[in-house]
Amino acid sequence: MTDADDLTPNIPEVVAEIRALFERYEQALVDKDVDVLDATFWNSPHTIRYAMNEMGYGFDAIHRHRVNRKPGTRFKGERRRLEILTLGRRFATVNLEFQVAGSDKIGRQSQTFVNFPDVGWKVVAAHVSATDGQPSW
Amino acid sequence: MTDADDLTPNIPEVVAEIRALFERYEQALVDKDVDVLDATFWNSPHTIRYAMNEMGYGFDAIHRHRVNRKPGTRFKGERRRLEILTLGRRFATVNLEFQVAGSDKIGRQSQTFVNFPDVGWKVVAAHVSATDGQPSW
Repeated sequence: MTDADDLTPNIPEVVAEIRALFERYEQALVDKDVDVLDATFWNSPHTIRYAMNEMGYGFDAIHRHRVNRKPGTRFKGERRRLEILTLGRRFATVNLEFQVAGSDKIGRQSQTFVNFPDVGWKVVAAHVSATDGQPSW
Repeated sequence: MTDADDLTPNIPEVVAEIRALFERYEQALVDKDVDVLDATFWNSPHTIRYAMNEMGYGFDAIHRHRVNRKPGTRFKGERRRLEILTLGRRFATVNLEFQVAGSDKIGRQSQTFVNFPDVGWKVVAAHVSATDGQPSW
């Protein structure tokens, strides 16, 4: 069995690696550090980021959204729950539930990380949303 | 290099396999076929599904949401864009953008699939949301 065949959940050193990347990304959102935001995502036309109010298809579109974002825009309030799942050393998901700042809404942020042999851990898909928890259908 | 080390994007037969699982899942949502819905998701406490109006942490919670859902509840209108990304034969993401039925809102559905040696392809994380595309911050 190679490393890549191993899908052992939550090997502590892999979780620690993803947690560090996640915290770096969160800080970069606050700082609008576009280099770090870009470096977190896979540089590919296949990469997708569904943001709160926009759909980013491909790295270039996602980059443009970063550049256009107003600096100092903080929409994350308190963290409610953070879940990191790693499977072996190739694959991870991060899911964060948070209070939307200045709102009763609950925010959710999901990221799918893949560890590429050439460029290391990158987000290949992300989804951020808010819900008021009121079933509308 | 084993199969698992290969992260070649979108090998056609792998994409076809994921597409078939995705379509089966979509039909099961319409039919409220809980067996198929359950079979699509990884039976693990680590599995997460952020639905439109609820947070499902772990397979059991996700299952309960399925059971409690009113049958015949269709919230998906026309599909706007469907993107499938497979990386080798172990990882895949599916992202669907759709019109929310009877609403101006745009829905987004993201799924992360992992191909487990013992149980095959399963969703380990999913996120469904709606946006009105109006930046609120």
